[in-house]
Amino acid sequence: MNYYAEPIARLINELSKLPGIGNKTAQRLAFFIVNMSNEEALDLAKAIEGAKEGIGYCSICGNLTDIDPCSICASPKRDNTAICVVKDPRDVVAMEKMQEYKGLYHVLHGTISPMHGIGPDDIRIKELLDRLKDGKIKEVILATNPDVEGEATAMYISRLIKPLGIRTTRIAHGIPVGGDLEYADQITLQKAFEGRRDI
Amino acid sequence: MNYYAEPIARLINELSKLPGIGNKTAQRLAFFIVNMSNEEALDLAKAIEGAKEGIGYCSICGNLTDIDPCSICASPKRDNTAICVVKDPRDVVAMEKMQEYKGLYHVLHGTISPMHGIGPDDIRIKELLDRLKDGKIKEVILATNPDVEGEATAMYISRLIKPLGIRTTRIAHGIPVGGDLEYADQITLQKAFEGRRDI
Repeated sequence: MNYYAEPIARLINELSKLPGIGNKTAQRLAFFIVNMSNEEALDLAKAIEGAKEGIGYCSICGNLTDIDPCSICASPKRDNTAICVVKDPRDVVAMEKMQEYKGLYHVLHGTISPMHGIGPDDIRIKELLDRLKDGKIKEVILATNPDVEGEATAMYISRLIKPLGIRTTRIAHGIPVGGDLEYADQITLQKAFEGRRDI
Repeated sequence: MNYYAEPIARLINELSKLPGIGNKTAQRLAFFIVNMSNEEALDLAKAIEGAKEGIGYCSICGNLTDIDPCSICASPKRDNTAICVVKDPRDVVAMEKMQEYKGLYHVLHGTISPMHGIGPDDIRIKELLDRLKDGKIKEVILATNPDVEGEATAMYISRLIKPLGIRTTRIAHGIPVGGDLEYADQITLQKAFEGRRDI
């Protein structure tokens, strides 16, 4: 039996396809949207359409962008001798928020994961190697996540790049700032210990 | 500084207006939507527009509906001698899922709450009294929430209806099924005790 008017049922169904949105939340959101002003609801619908239509991937770095090449690849202010390799476009945002790094990016759109049938050819490793050919890049910073897949991917890429004579670095793993030794897991603590530096 | 391409920033902004969706979640949803197929994203946008355009309030009971009067008010199978009074359309869905009640509904669209400046004239109490005038209704079931506002509203409505000689009932409060006495709050326990019945 259907407890909702058809347009609401359809909206609940569509919303519950989003990640982290279960049936209850979808229901709550749907009722909220129905109670929104016409203008607000249309703004939301238009923003969804606009994001799909206006957004593509940068042909150079693979980041999400509304212009090609993206504003980072096209910027004369960026240091075009360094490439930071990340898993997905969200990681670019995280790095940019740091406001420390001024080089370029390369988005892999995934990590090597044999468990999920994702091999080196399924992510943008070839495109990365192509970008290194002209010899302008002096450093590749591997900033994939510190999980099994991220580590394996970083290892794989570093083996391909090192023979080219390009400096290859990996972001540090350790206790997060404000974190507590007591609550750090064993592997993080081990990484923090391994990565210790003279002060 | 803006870290996102404009269409994504706009989508994140629109999504974060939804209840329970903070900036981080809006960001996650926005990236998910950008990665959806064009068709899926359009379905979502269309469902939002459709829910706004196709949905209105039933002129009789005030429930959300795509036809007027709504399917419950118009159904010849429903018991039209009983009205269940609820706070909002979500509560109608909750009651219908029970599959026990076969009468009609009346949606108040709020509860009396002097703290928020909502008085008896701001919710659909007058419309409820109008529905009772023709003498067909034999029972009014007050199913507002068991909180301060819900109780006050139920009390207020029952005082208006009782003089009309219509049976006025309130849904029972007590320990939820599967609940534990030990963890029940004092007021719930008190209500459960007050509402004890012979077995």
